Amino acid sequence: MRLSRYFLPVLKEAPSDAQIVSHQLMLRAGMIRQEAAGIYAWLPLGLRVLNKVEQIVREEMDRAGAVELLMPTLQLADLWRESGRYDAYGPEMLRITDRHERELLYGPTNEEMVTEIFRASVRSYKDLPKNLYHVQWKFRDERRPRFGVMRGREFLMKDAYSFDLDAEGARKSYNRMFVAYLNLYARMGLKAVPMRADTGPIGGDLSHEFIVLAETGESAVFCHKDLVEMDPPGADVDWYGDLQPLVDQRTALYAATEEMHDEAAFDAIPEGDRLSARGIEVGHIFSFGTKYSEPMKAYVMGPDGKEVPAQMGSYGVGVSRLLGAIIEASHDEGGIIWPESVAPFHVGIVNMRQGDGACDAACDSAYKALQAAGVDVLYDDTDARGGAKFATMDLIGLPWQLIVGPKGIADGVVELKNRKTGERVSEPLDAVIARLTGKAA
Amino acid sequence: MRLSRYFLPVLKEAPSDAQIVSHQLMLRAGMIRQEAAGIYAWLPLGLRVLNKVEQIVREEMDRAGAVELLMPTLQLADLWRESGRYDAYGPEMLRITDRHERELLYGPTNEEMVTEIFRASVRSYKDLPKNLYHVQWKFRDERRPRFGVMRGREFLMKDAYSFDLDAEGARKSYNRMFVAYLNLYARMGLKAVPMRADTGPIGGDLSHEFIVLAETGESAVFCHKDLVEMDPPGADVDWYGDLQPLVDQRTALYAATEEMHDEAAFDAIPEGDRLSARGIEVGHIFSFGTKYSEPMKAYVMGPDGKEVPAQMGSYGVGVSRLLGAIIEASHDEGGIIWPESVAPFHVGIVNMRQGDGACDAACDSAYKALQAAGVDVLYDDTDARGGAKFATMDLIGLPWQLIVGPKGIADGVVELKNRKTGERVSEPLDAVIARLTGKAA
Repeated sequence: MRLSRYFLPVLKEAPSDAQIVSHQLMLRAGMIRQEAAGIYAWLPLGLRVLNKVEQIVREEMDRAGAVELLMPTLQLADLWRESGRYDAYGPEMLRITDRHERELLYGPTNEEMVTEIFRASVRSYKDLPKNLYHVQWKFRDERRPRFGVMRGREFLMKDAYSFDLDAEGARKSYNRMFVAYLNLYARMGLKAVPMRADTGPIGGDLSHEFIVLAETGESAVFCHKDLVEMDPPGADVDWYGDLQPLVDQRTALYAATEEMHDEAAFDAIPEGDRLSARGIEVGHIFSFGTKYSEPMKAYVMGPDGKEVPAQMGSYGVGVSRLLGAIIEASHDEGGIIWPESVAPFHVGIVNMRQGDGACDAACDSAYKALQAAGVDVLYDDTDARGGAKFATMDLIGLPWQLIVGPKGIADGVVELKNRKTGERVSEPLDAVIARLTGKAA
Repeated sequence: MRLSRYFLPVLKEAPSDAQIVSHQLMLRAGMIRQEAAGIYAWLPLGLRVLNKVEQIVREEMDRAGAVELLMPTLQLADLWRESGRYDAYGPEMLRITDRHERELLYGPTNEEMVTEIFRASVRSYKDLPKNLYHVQWKFRDERRPRFGVMRGREFLMKDAYSFDLDAEGARKSYNRMFVAYLNLYARMGLKAVPMRADTGPIGGDLSHEFIVLAETGESAVFCHKDLVEMDPPGADVDWYGDLQPLVDQRTALYAATEEMHDEAAFDAIPEGDRLSARGIEVGHIFSFGTKYSEPMKAYVMGPDGKEVPAQMGSYGVGVSRLLGAIIEASHDEGGIIWPESVAPFHVGIVNMRQGDGACDAACDSAYKALQAAGVDVLYDDTDARGGAKFATMDLIGLPWQLIVGPKGIADGVVELKNRKTGERVSEPLDAVIARLTGKAA
């Protein structure tokens, strides 16, 4: 993408109401723009990252056997009356009346609707296990939206729902999601720790939150420090085999959010291994048995010919919120430092003297070569000064900067800078292209 | 995807309120499920097609120089008061009040919001032309939603918005979208004819609807028959060159929707070239000058140092509705016939005798080989009877069916059926795989 044709409204300073660094940086880097309290437009740079994060979540869901569908944003109030949650849900639910005075709501979550979809067609244990997920915009009318996309009102969530015949099957479904979550956060460069959590309005008796540790986290968390550095299970897990050992390996160590914190159990950890920190919730999984299937009559026939309500679980990932969490975990005074897996572009080309024939020719050639190799590249072909271009590149945090200046070109070299380490090498353009495309020069 | 792990709730019969064939087939093929009047869940098979259609639209927008962002579904009423449309828009606008009594609405379109985003950062003619688009769920509270996704209330739309310094630039932006639209419909196997159209509540003086001819179309249309068979311009258009001849080639021939119909002009066409038919609107483009930029103060500085309101246009494609239009244009008594570009899977494998060692082995081998080659494949590994499997495959309309039965396996062959032509060949499995993956055997 040529910057002159792109839309990247970077700001020198963030608005004063942006309190945390991720919110400030997302505004400054032209990733988002607030359109109402807690409601954001995703500008082109922000959308590119959102899409990459969403795609990682999708791939890990698919790998773990979940099947994607897409439920609408608006739901019937009557559907929520079936589970009893329409009246139980507080003012965070956005209630809407249409032109025919029918009561609708903007979905804050989808347990009821997916149960309705399931019960309409699934009858037999032979069709189980089933895990249906979607990635859709949700709305929660937070009393006090803040921290940008970290606590917005309209937000993008991945929510998966599992259906099983019995508790044993439900546990296996829960474990598949538990393991998939470990992998998906790791792919985004995040260290997310599963912690015992309160089940809140979703209900159920088994629940974990996935927490990224960050000073600006919204709540206090407590865990054994080994959990933070544990490697993810990886993609070659046997998804339909026994995942319990992988889960036990984590749950054997103490980890709990504030609401579930057990002081005595925490104190039993050797002092040097105790970690008391603040955390950002980036996922929440629940196993809640028949809480919805029973009142909503989502029954399946077992091998014994008896009908039983399906055992269910639900599994959420805050997709839009993850961008904030990633930035909280990965930035410096210059701006964002994107992990390669979610970077909006892999390389930024900085033309230090736009209009200079040799510089333009080298940049054009690099741009074409990188594009041809399938590398996402943003080419700053504007007539801004070099200093301003550097500041923008650092701010938006692309992993690599390819710097083309007249002096270097006269010497036959360009510069390649790594955003994270700050390391620079000066090499002929061909060699730099080869590095970036993974080919030997 | 193995069907046993998928979620494909096909129906023997469509509900009686489904009046048109696309609605009936989408319900029967397990693509959608109604969750409220005009509000649908996209089941896994439907979502796959929706994603493919959306991706084609995206690619053609990107090619024509438009830049993608994503605006939220909910908007502030006050924003629409700036343009005067909040009060002007009728009961089709879904008006919402949040917990703090702030007035919101579920966006039916985004002229106001994109103008707000534009004016916040663009100041100079040097940043023009600019075309910003998004693909987002919209809501129009239709009085009488019907025809499934063809006239839903919550629907997916691509809407692009162009900004230029002057009328000449605006015309070029309009032409880029006009040409991009010709290409994008053609890529989906549709013959869409641009027709002069009424500008309705969007406003402006230049507007075309893109119409797919279909007996079940919602409105009468009139055109020169040559327009229907005209080839699309193709991808190698010079997007920043002169596109006027390509546009003139179409607009020189008569084509108008009912509201804009000119009987005398139509009668001037030689009788054999007149086409009077019914049509489905699948896109609508508008050039409306300063209708929004003037009241909303979206001004840009020209080269002469004077500030002028930006010249704007907007360009919509009904993404979810396109699925209905494609099915209306491409089906037979057995079900849907997907064009390859939007098919949910490229090949369906039918195992005629699940549980038979030789059949299972051949199917598994085909499944793995096709997946490894990057071919989207749905493997019917259920224990349904062969006849039921055939009916489902015809219904869901995958371009190719690979049929594996015990008799063929004994003879060393499998069968490959083309859904569209019904042609069948019997060949060794290796040869069939080679055909499907485009490799010589």
